[in-house]
Amino acid sequence: MSSMNVKTPDILVSEVGPRDGLQSISQAMPTDAKLRWIAALAGAGLREIEVGSFVSPKLLPQMADAAEVVAGAIKISDLTVLALVPNLKGAERAIAAGVHKLTMPVSASRQHSLANIGKTPEEAIAEVAKVRTLVDTLPQDQRPALEVGISTAFGCTMEGPVPEDRVIEMAELLAKAGADSVGLSDTTGYANPAQVKRLFKRLFAGIGAKAGGAHLHNTRGQGLANVVAALDAGVTTFDSSQGGLGGCPYAPGATGNIVTEDLVFLLESMGLSTGIDIDRLIAARAIIQAALPGEPLYGHVPDAGLPKGFVPAALRSDA
Amino acid sequence: MSSMNVKTPDILVSEVGPRDGLQSISQAMPTDAKLRWIAALAGAGLREIEVGSFVSPKLLPQMADAAEVVAGAIKISDLTVLALVPNLKGAERAIAAGVHKLTMPVSASRQHSLANIGKTPEEAIAEVAKVRTLVDTLPQDQRPALEVGISTAFGCTMEGPVPEDRVIEMAELLAKAGADSVGLSDTTGYANPAQVKRLFKRLFAGIGAKAGGAHLHNTRGQGLANVVAALDAGVTTFDSSQGGLGGCPYAPGATGNIVTEDLVFLLESMGLSTGIDIDRLIAARAIIQAALPGEPLYGHVPDAGLPKGFVPAALRSDA
Repeated sequence: MSSMNVKTPDILVSEVGPRDGLQSISQAMPTDAKLRWIAALAGAGLREIEVGSFVSPKLLPQMADAAEVVAGAIKISDLTVLALVPNLKGAERAIAAGVHKLTMPVSASRQHSLANIGKTPEEAIAEVAKVRTLVDTLPQDQRPALEVGISTAFGCTMEGPVPEDRVIEMAELLAKAGADSVGLSDTTGYANPAQVKRLFKRLFAGIGAKAGGAHLHNTRGQGLANVVAALDAGVTTFDSSQGGLGGCPYAPGATGNIVTEDLVFLLESMGLSTGIDIDRLIAARAIIQAALPGEPLYGHVPDAGLPKGFVPAALRSDA
Repeated sequence: MSSMNVKTPDILVSEVGPRDGLQSISQAMPTDAKLRWIAALAGAGLREIEVGSFVSPKLLPQMADAAEVVAGAIKISDLTVLALVPNLKGAERAIAAGVHKLTMPVSASRQHSLANIGKTPEEAIAEVAKVRTLVDTLPQDQRPALEVGISTAFGCTMEGPVPEDRVIEMAELLAKAGADSVGLSDTTGYANPAQVKRLFKRLFAGIGAKAGGAHLHNTRGQGLANVVAALDAGVTTFDSSQGGLGGCPYAPGATGNIVTEDLVFLLESMGLSTGIDIDRLIAARAIIQAALPGEPLYGHVPDAGLPKGFVPAALRSDA
C-alpha cells in the first residue's frame, strides 16, 4: 500500500480463477486477456492471485503461457503472484519466471493422490522437501514463499471419509518438509461447518503460525457456510474464483470454487475488511465474458446487487 | 412418533414451499397435487409444513384452495399444519379449516409494512392482539399456536438498514400482544452472519422461550452461512422451501428461500438430526415437476448427490 495510514485488511482473499478456473474449462483464454483480467482484479483490490500452473502443456494447454502470464503479472505493484507447481520441475520453471509464491497440492487420500499426480502422499511430501531445498539455494531476497494445500482434506470421492488424524499428521510432516504454510482444501465439496471448524482448530494447534488458508468448494451449496466456520476457527486467508469460473456448482465432479464476489460480500457485510471494491470486482467480469464467450459465470451478488445502504467494512464505525 | 425410543430431532425444519413457494409463481398447483406433495414431504420426515395462506383469492388465486388443503393436511399424522394469516379475518377462516398453527407476518420497516399489508407496524401488532383474543375464545384443546415472523428484520429494500433496537422492541411488543413465538425473517436477503448471530442472541435475551425460528433467504448467496450463525446463537427452527420453489436465487426481488434439500444436508452433515430422509425428500421433487411443468427447481445437493460414505446425524456415533 502506498500510504502508511492504510490499515491492513482483516482477510486475505486469494483469487484462483486464472489458474483453477481457467484450467477447468475447455476454451483457452488468450494471454493478453489473462493479463488484463489479472490487472483488473488487482485494481479492484485483490492482493494475491494464482495466475497459472506449471504443468505439462500437453496435460493443460490452457496453462501453456504460464511463464508469460507470471512475467506480466509481477509488474503489477502490491500484488503477490502465485503459481501452482505439481513437482520440482514445475517449481524450477515457476522460479525462472519470477513468481512470488509457489503452491503445491498434496492429497490426504492415497487413491486421489495416485490418480491425480501419480505419487503416493509420502512421495508428494518428499517432493515438497525437494522444492524447499531448491528454494533455499536461491539468494534470500529471491526466494518465493512455499505454500502447500492439502487436497481431499474433508473427504474423497474415491475413499469417502478421510481420517482427521491423517490430515493433521500430514500437515505436520509438510511443515517439517519445509512448507511455509499448509492450508486445507475441500476438493470434493464434502466439508461441513462443524468439520471445518474442528479441523482448522486442530491445524492451528498442530503447526501454529504455519497454518494456512481455506480452499472451499460450493459443490453442495455449503461453501460460504464453511467460510463462517473457518472464520470462527481463526482462518484469515480464503481462496475463491471470480464468477465461480470453471466449476458449475450444479455439476457433480466439477470444481465448484466459491465465488469471489459472494465471498467478498459475506466478509465485508460481516465487518471484515478485504481491501476489495465490490463494484470494481464485478466490473472485471466483463473481461472474462468478452474473452470466453458463452462461458457461464456464477454468483448471487452480481445479479442481486448490493443492499440499499450497504457500507464496506473499512468505512463502518462498528468494524 | 410411533416409538417411545425415537429421540426428538435436534432441529425443526419448517417447510414453507406449499405457501411461500407456490404463492410466488404464476402457475397454480392443483389441490390434489398440493396434498400429494405435502404427504410426500411428511413421509420424508418433515414435521411442520406451511400449507397455504388465508388471503383474498383475488390477490393470490394460487392460495384459493387453502381451506381444502388444510382439511386434507390435518389428516396426516405427526404433522403440524401451519397457515399464514395476514389479519383477523384470515385467522377466522384458518381456524374454521382446522389449522394447528397460525403464522402472521409483521414488518419491522414502516414503508414495507404499509406497502405489503396497508398497515403501520403498530396496527399490525394490534391485529396480532385481536387474533390472540379470538384464539382464546376457543376451548383450550382447540386453540392453534400463534407464531409471528418479523419481516425485513435484517434490512429493507425501501428503508435500507433497520435499527436492531426497533426489531427487538417489536419482538417484545408482539410477545406481550400474545404471540406464542416471534421469529426473524430476512425478507430481502440482506442479512449477514455477524448480524444474524447478534440479533438472535438479543431476541433470546429479550423474549426468552418465546424466541422463534429463522426465516432466511439466499438472494445474495448467504442463506446457509446465516444458518450457521443462527445455530451458533441457539436457533433450533428454520424455514426453507423445497427446491427453493418460487424464488429464483439469481433474481433481485424474488423470494429466494433457502433450499430445504441443502439445509437438511448442512444440518445432518454437521451431526444435527432433523428426522428427515434426504433421499425421500429429493424424491418428492418429482411431484412438483409433474404438477408445475417447466418451473425451475434449485438446490445443489439434488444435483451433486450425497458424499460417498455419508451417514445421517441420527446414525452417527459422534452426534
